[in-house]
Amino acid sequence: MADPRFFQVAGPFTLGQLAEICGAELSAGADAGKVISDVAALEGASTDQISFLDNRKYVSAFAATAAGAVIVHPDLAERGPAGTALLLSKDPYRAYAMVAQTFYPSPAPVAWISPSAHVDGSARIGADCWIDHGVIIGAGAEIGDRCRIGSHAVIGAGVVIGADGAIGANATIQCALIGAKVNIYPGARIGQDGFGFAMGVQGHLKVPQLGRVVIGNNVEIGANTTIDRGAGPDTVIGDGCWIDNLVQIGHNVQLGRGCVVVAQVGISGSTQFGDFVAAGGQSGFAGHLKIGSGAKIAAQAGVIGDVPAGQTYGGYPAVPRLEWLRQSVILGKMARTKR
Amino acid sequence: MADPRFFQVAGPFTLGQLAEICGAELSAGADAGKVISDVAALEGASTDQISFLDNRKYVSAFAATAAGAVIVHPDLAERGPAGTALLLSKDPYRAYAMVAQTFYPSPAPVAWISPSAHVDGSARIGADCWIDHGVIIGAGAEIGDRCRIGSHAVIGAGVVIGADGAIGANATIQCALIGAKVNIYPGARIGQDGFGFAMGVQGHLKVPQLGRVVIGNNVEIGANTTIDRGAGPDTVIGDGCWIDNLVQIGHNVQLGRGCVVVAQVGISGSTQFGDFVAAGGQSGFAGHLKIGSGAKIAAQAGVIGDVPAGQTYGGYPAVPRLEWLRQSVILGKMARTKR
Amino acid sequence: MADPRFFQVAGPFTLGQLAEICGAELSAGADAGKVISDVAALEGASTDQISFLDNRKYVSAFAATAAGAVIVHPDLAERGPAGTALLLSKDPYRAYAMVAQTFYPSPAPVAWISPSAHVDGSARIGADCWIDHGVIIGAGAEIGDRCRIGSHAVIGAGVVIGADGAIGANATIQCALIGAKVNIYPGARIGQDGFGFAMGVQGHLKVPQLGRVVIGNNVEIGANTTIDRGAGPDTVIGDGCWIDNLVQIGHNVQLGRGCVVVAQVGISGSTQFGDFVAAGGQSGFAGHLKIGSGAKIAAQAGVIGDVPAGQTYGGYPAVPRLEWLRQSVILGKMARTKR
Repeated sequence: MADPRFFQVAGPFTLGQLAEICGAELSAGADAGKVISDVAALEGASTDQISFLDNRKYVSAFAATAAGAVIVHPDLAERGPAGTALLLSKDPYRAYAMVAQTFYPSPAPVAWISPSAHVDGSARIGADCWIDHGVIIGAGAEIGDRCRIGSHAVIGAGVVIGADGAIGANATIQCALIGAKVNIYPGARIGQDGFGFAMGVQGHLKVPQLGRVVIGNNVEIGANTTIDRGAGPDTVIGDGCWIDNLVQIGHNVQLGRGCVVVAQVGISGSTQFGDFVAAGGQSGFAGHLKIGSGAKIAAQAGVIGDVPAGQTYGGYPAVPRLEWLRQSVILGKMARTKR
Repeated sequence: MADPRFFQVAGPFTLGQLAEICGAELSAGADAGKVISDVAALEGASTDQISFLDNRKYVSAFAATAAGAVIVHPDLAERGPAGTALLLSKDPYRAYAMVAQTFYPSPAPVAWISPSAHVDGSARIGADCWIDHGVIIGAGAEIGDRCRIGSHAVIGAGVVIGADGAIGANATIQCALIGAKVNIYPGARIGQDGFGFAMGVQGHLKVPQLGRVVIGNNVEIGANTTIDRGAGPDTVIGDGCWIDNLVQIGHNVQLGRGCVVVAQVGISGSTQFGDFVAAGGQSGFAGHLKIGSGAKIAAQAGVIGDVPAGQTYGGYPAVPRLEWLRQSVILGKMARTKR
Repeated sequence: MADPRFFQVAGPFTLGQLAEICGAELSAGADAGKVISDVAALEGASTDQISFLDNRKYVSAFAATAAGAVIVHPDLAERGPAGTALLLSKDPYRAYAMVAQTFYPSPAPVAWISPSAHVDGSARIGADCWIDHGVIIGAGAEIGDRCRIGSHAVIGAGVVIGADGAIGANATIQCALIGAKVNIYPGARIGQDGFGFAMGVQGHLKVPQLGRVVIGNNVEIGANTTIDRGAGPDTVIGDGCWIDNLVQIGHNVQLGRGCVVVAQVGISGSTQFGDFVAAGGQSGFAGHLKIGSGAKIAAQAGVIGDVPAGQTYGGYPAVPRLEWLRQSVILGKMARTKR
């Protein structure tokens, strides 16, 4: 299914192996020994491929699929074609992720340092790292085991990167301490000066930015995203955060664990997110705010005040979601009726 | 006119030649043999330069111009200074584009591969390509004839780029199949992982992104723009699309032919544009939408539902343009009158 | 205080020296000979460190601080702990900036050109420049004294950069004339083609972009920001402008002196800012507008018309701030009361 110029499929695996890998239950009558050779979408899957149903919108595709097996929630099990082998899971998308990772694992890097890389003599490079062409690693930097540093990435002096990290091509990192299993995409900019200056008609005056960027474990940071270092305190990204492309994170911002920050979000200086906050695409946050754990912010919302834990906000300026929806409804009604 | 440090002017050309090149008609009495040496703005143009009038706002500049010739719509012809030679065209901006391209052509690249470039032995490089310093080209990649690859651009294994392409400095391309005459600006990121993961309190789990980015012919992709590869299906950019800087295009997005996507637009995963859709600056699109051919979306609009072909939408959330304007008018009126 | 892996502290300095450096007055009874070894935040500062109070929100931290000295406005002087030495200043943040610059000065670059840099033989490099690994400098470019060019930055043919400039790693600059003391952050893209083309169903046609980017002195340009060159006129950034990350500035835009442009702002082609305009994060500006000197634009505002000097605008579409606030209040009230 996946283009072999770009992806290498592992396997094949038996249905029984896949069920075990993803913690799913085989449907009654399914053959645990059946051989599955790849993943595929419901439409277009063939009888030796496994697919999944997560979004109810695609139930009709499920009903018509020729897939050899489908990962599905037990509640929807009977909606598939008679006789199709099912892997029953309460979280079919997660189960699919595990299966797809099985067919398309990330191979461990081969130990190699390109002769065109510039690695400072005082830098420490862990075991089995792949340091690609033109990579720059500054004095005293520490790169953990099994890291993969992409071409022309620039890692500044003193930067620490934990084990199993991946730094994308042309990315730039300075003044940063980064945990294990962190994946930084091409062109991301980590640790440059925050936007700090004293304004004045005689000229704005730079305030030295003396903090760092501290990133936890299992974090993803998207392409061309920018994360400024702290002004004095650190900028902190908690464990398990997923940050999309073209996001701006200002100095001193703190994100808790597991936050999801969609593309083009902007978070102004010193704002703090709790754990598992979700910020929709292009939403913006003023500075010095507290966004409680589990809060959800709609795409394009303009957040200018604190948001309590667990709340969903939207609008510009952002208000609780129901209020925002009502505003839209009322305004729409007036626009259609008033003169 | 143009700074000779950066631009080299060709020519000169006669008015007759220019009229033929751009398909315009010479005004009565104009001398087809008149020699024109450059393009220039209406203000400041001299008698051996050619200018154009496209926007009615500049009619007074037309009336006062000293330009040796002006490209203009027949309806506005009599608004210029008496005796000025005119090139009459129903599409004067397009005619100007042709004339300006004549004075400032893109020279064909000289065949050259920098000794500091790393071109994998299995990559195929077409005739007359310019491969600049520090370029990386991976295994099995195919670069068409007359391509220009800018310094430190990183082209991943298996990537295909058609003839007459230009890849900007420091750009990054992976998992992509790109047509002919595609111009990718500096710092663009093409083909990295889409933002796909199964959320969970025990940690978000990556879903392998197994699709590609497929780009048609005659496409422009702006500086620092990011286009993620598909999750399984491909991300597709149709022929003739113009994409500005800092745009985000999510996995599985499909753009039809000739779409215009202005700076800082964000298009969420799996959304589909028809042909010739125009998306204004900073507008945002939720995922899984269908935007019909010829639709126009106002700057900063937040599109959360399908948009029919040919419609103009604006607002947050986006609604048909007239409705949006009315909302603004009514709200403004209330703000000025109610207590 | 600051991590010694990334920052080197100068000093120590006496209180008297610091007072003179920042133009502040020593409070009565303060010992001008007291030795101060570093800057620190109010919380956590020790008796040999100096802190500052600028935002009233932190008055209680001031009251409890153990800092050896605090820079503070005279009006708040009595809110600190008894006996704390104070540096009294009408602009404590600016005074702090001067003190922090004293403890953390930018060292002058050491003259060095990396052997992996490619500097064209016709380029002129000033005295005491640091040209890092993989830097590309094109034909005829001129780099002023004491410039610092970061790894893999690409400086095109003919580009001029004034003295004491800093160009971030992986940045790209072409067709630009840049003043003295300009700081361009990693990944910024300066001088690529503007978004100019004649639309047409038979295919959009590129209009050659024949202008430059002209940048004054003392300018900061953030990470991954994009500034397109002019179409014929130049794109101009005035002296003392501060431009944050991920900002888009279109062709022919002109910014006056001292403008502050926060992250993710987009400014469309040919719009002109006066002096000291402040544009909040994610705000957007249509093309061909005039924004008067001293105007302030709220974050996320969508500006579609001219803004008079000194006015504050907000909203989408943007209106005078008070009107926008009233719109929000009225709409909120209706949403809570109407059915």
